[in-house]
Amino acid sequence: MRDERDWGQFHTAENLAKSIAIEAGELLECFQWDPDADDARVKEELADVVTYCILLADRLGVDLDAIVTAKLESTRAKYPAEKAKGRSTKYDAL
Amino acid sequence: MRDERDWGQFHTAENLAKSIAIEAGELLECFQWDPDADDARVKEELADVVTYCILLADRLGVDLDAIVTAKLESTRAKYPAEKAKGRSTKYDAL
Amino acid sequence: MRDERDWGQFHTAENLAKSIAIEAGELLECFQWDPDADDARVKEELADVVTYCILLADRLGVDLDAIVTAKLESTRAKYPAEKAKGRSTKYDAL
Amino acid sequence: MRDERDWGQFHTAENLAKSIAIEAGELLECFQWDPDADDARVKEELADVVTYCILLADRLGVDLDAIVTAKLESTRAKYPAEKAKGRSTKYDAL
Repeated sequence: MRDERDWGQFHTAENLAKSIAIEAGELLECFQWDPDADDARVKEELADVVTYCILLADRLGVDLDAIVTAKLESTRAKYPAEKAKGRSTKYDAL
Repeated sequence: MRDERDWGQFHTAENLAKSIAIEAGELLECFQWDPDADDARVKEELADVVTYCILLADRLGVDLDAIVTAKLESTRAKYPAEKAKGRSTKYDAL
Repeated sequence: MRDERDWGQFHTAENLAKSIAIEAGELLECFQWDPDADDARVKEELADVVTYCILLADRLGVDLDAIVTAKLESTRAKYPAEKAKGRSTKYDAL
Repeated sequence: MRDERDWGQFHTAENLAKSIAIEAGELLECFQWDPDADDARVKEELADVVTYCILLADRLGVDLDAIVTAKLESTRAKYPAEKAKGRSTKYDAL
């Protein structure tokens, strides 16, 4: 779809990173004054964030699933289950 | 992994939306003063954003691929290729 | 201080807008998992956000107090006290 | 103005931190695809960010000018002019 519209020229890594932050702000707006948000709106805004994430991964030439899995493995190592159970403490304070 | 560590209690939709915005800020930090960022760092930060997106989709009980595809269809309809070609104008100004 | 360090060259309006978003993410991080944050940390992060806001106002050649007052007047007009009392509804839904 | 409208109840520190991040995203949106933004729009969005910063300082019972000055002093110490001149390197890499 991006190619049909010749939008690749705007999709530098930097512009996509800005776009992700902008859309993340719109997602957060669903929860601005109230923890209970409208689910349909949350889904739309979440889809916008993820769309730009996919475009950035594409621009970087990486597979999104692969980098998420790699990151998960490294987080798993940093937060051993027996230490981190039921806590939201940052790993360097565990 | 979240379940092994009993982290589900912190993963309200609101906390996850905050987390996505926080990680999007860290991703943007790679490009703070320079459009050329370190690719390895960008990948790590992008993985963090997407990880929280997956957790939020999970919390909402929706399939991430499905909402992205649905959104893409609606964007495609809003920006007809013949009108939007090579422009970054917002749809309501086309 | 910026001038002593020759940092003006990095302080384009765009870079400062990115910096504000980045620091706003760090401020939000104080509240990531818990509405009760450490006050000292919140103050530091808030100071960072405002510092970049001052630099951006400076770059634009505007007086920060003046634009805040102008905006306040326009918000006051959009949300009449008798209608908006005790509600967080957006003005176009009032 | 907030008091006339009974909005203090929504203005918890957490909600204000979210609001700052949301408005910072709108400010960034002025620069999403282009480093040259419309100045009038930038001023309005900047005013929104600063308004919430003022409300958060108020909620914390701190003076915004005082915390900005304090932070500036500590940054000045971390980035000595002779070392940091003309560089955007982070202080721990100087």
